Amino acid sequence: MSGVIARTPATGSAALRDIQAPVRDRLEEVVRAMHSIVTDELPLIREVSGHLLEMRGKMFRPTLALLASAVDDKPDPRGITLAAVVELMHLATLVHDDSVDHSSLRRGRPTVNSMFSHQVSVIMGDYLYSRALTALVGMADLEILRIVTDVANELTIGEMRQLAAIDSLQFGEADYYQLIRCKTASLLSGACESGALCGAAGYRQVLAQYGDRLGMAFQITDDILDYTGEASVTGKPGGLDLREHKMTLPLIAALPSVSPAGRERIGAVFASATPDDELILDVITIVAEAGGIDYARQRGARFAEDAGETLRRLPDSPARAALADAISYVLDRRS
Amino acid sequence: MSGVIARTPATGSAALRDIQAPVRDRLEEVVRAMHSIVTDELPLIREVSGHLLEMRGKMFRPTLALLASAVDDKPDPRGITLAAVVELMHLATLVHDDSVDHSSLRRGRPTVNSMFSHQVSVIMGDYLYSRALTALVGMADLEILRIVTDVANELTIGEMRQLAAIDSLQFGEADYYQLIRCKTASLLSGACESGALCGAAGYRQVLAQYGDRLGMAFQITDDILDYTGEASVTGKPGGLDLREHKMTLPLIAALPSVSPAGRERIGAVFASATPDDELILDVITIVAEAGGIDYARQRGARFAEDAGETLRRLPDSPARAALADAISYVLDRRS
Repeated sequence: MSGVIARTPATGSAALRDIQAPVRDRLEEVVRAMHSIVTDELPLIREVSGHLLEMRGKMFRPTLALLASAVDDKPDPRGITLAAVVELMHLATLVHDDSVDHSSLRRGRPTVNSMFSHQVSVIMGDYLYSRALTALVGMADLEILRIVTDVANELTIGEMRQLAAIDSLQFGEADYYQLIRCKTASLLSGACESGALCGAAGYRQVLAQYGDRLGMAFQITDDILDYTGEASVTGKPGGLDLREHKMTLPLIAALPSVSPAGRERIGAVFASATPDDELILDVITIVAEAGGIDYARQRGARFAEDAGETLRRLPDSPARAALADAISYVLDRRS
Repeated sequence: MSGVIARTPATGSAALRDIQAPVRDRLEEVVRAMHSIVTDELPLIREVSGHLLEMRGKMFRPTLALLASAVDDKPDPRGITLAAVVELMHLATLVHDDSVDHSSLRRGRPTVNSMFSHQVSVIMGDYLYSRALTALVGMADLEILRIVTDVANELTIGEMRQLAAIDSLQFGEADYYQLIRCKTASLLSGACESGALCGAAGYRQVLAQYGDRLGMAFQITDDILDYTGEASVTGKPGGLDLREHKMTLPLIAALPSVSPAGRERIGAVFASATPDDELILDVITIVAEAGGIDYARQRGARFAEDAGETLRRLPDSPARAALADAISYVLDRRS
């Protein structure tokens, strides 16, 4: 990953624009494909879709799919549609997540449920997903369909596991990995694996594994940020997972070494529907001092190393270098 | 449709068990397939799935798919999986509908949103749909995939059109047909068309058309029942659509001939979030006296006739006779 340091010496971590450089033009095509896939004559659909496509995020998953398709230097044009489908599925999931969580902001913009209604957000999530699938079926590749529909299923199981992870201090490290593998790693892995089928089929397994490990590191980093991030950078209030009684790795790892007094404070968070800021900050400190955050960092770094290992099995190419950069990007991001 | 009368002389309408007779054994297999498709190790999923499969309805859509596959007397065993997928998709739609409408009862049993939570119902709808799709992809038939994913998309567009039909006295007859074609007829048509691809491919277009017309008659009858049905039979309070400010055919057809005083009463329903029973009964009478219900009956009968016409293009078979019976069943049902 030496290329990373050369490009962004100030922080040692990769910038998204560098990772996206090898597929910049194709990403523009992905955006156009997304628009054309969701287009409909119905005014309400047009309005909500427009809002959603405007609040488009970093396009990290389509970037992975396109890079995977390019690791053998002969990317197939079908990768554009695939990448658009992957991002639309991700968007559909976010719309339902926000509806389920009653979130009012996403990426600094009002969510569909807050701007329109709960009804519109449930239906629009279904709409985006069904449109993405229609486009996918149009690719006429059963193997890609298998991968992507399996991912869709994993994502919903992840959401159900997430519900089971709430209010449960018994939720352990193995449960947590199972949860984040479904909720997050499955889509990153599926994006890489199906991307591989658009031009680099021989590397399908390697890329699936890379995406899985990258996804695990990604979610662990996200869950650490909830303990360490500043709201001004992440765009989310700190300690949100604690406020929502969600067990994540820092807390799970800290629990066994927390003092009885500390456990009492943690219990107080889980017993309150709206724990106050002081209590939240207190528990964040307890978790940090018990080594929970350090442990989570180690585990995240380990998954990242594993992701890096898989890349050794790929030929040298700009796409491989960008996939390597994606690992440090995931670990070092601040939002 | 003379066979109908012979079998159920008392009412002149077909009983569901007669319609299902030619595919009775296969319907049992469909139920087993549904269970096997939704099975998961996660306790919460097992619990919710169990509840949903118990409240399984009349299996009308799988019956249509199986009958369609049998019109040429050589039904393909893949029809079982297909029929299970169709019913699971229908179930997924109902779960999201109930969540969107905050309904507390469905088929006399508590809905997922009332028994578990709104969160669980959004996620379980997604889960059922993704599992159904995984099973469908397993059939490895791109043409069937095309039909079913197009239906899924139509269903969501129908839901969005439904939102647009609320609180709008400008919603007209053409809008209404567009809405019910998406919301209801698309799935019946898709069940018949994809069913045809499991043993009677030569009759694909005929059966798609039959299902469309049957679906239109089905929904119009449903919307009439909301004006005429007794709660004790339908299991739903009367005038529900009016209470929810939904424009359906009886009201749309009545509007042009309603007196200014009648229009004022209708306006009062649409202006109130919780119109009282007296007002609702009053407006039901206004709609009936303006001929709205009769007109809707005529239109339903016309779609039913069109459905019957298409069947002439099929060879004579027990399946065709049952499809003919399904038409009178749809028109004459009381719930």
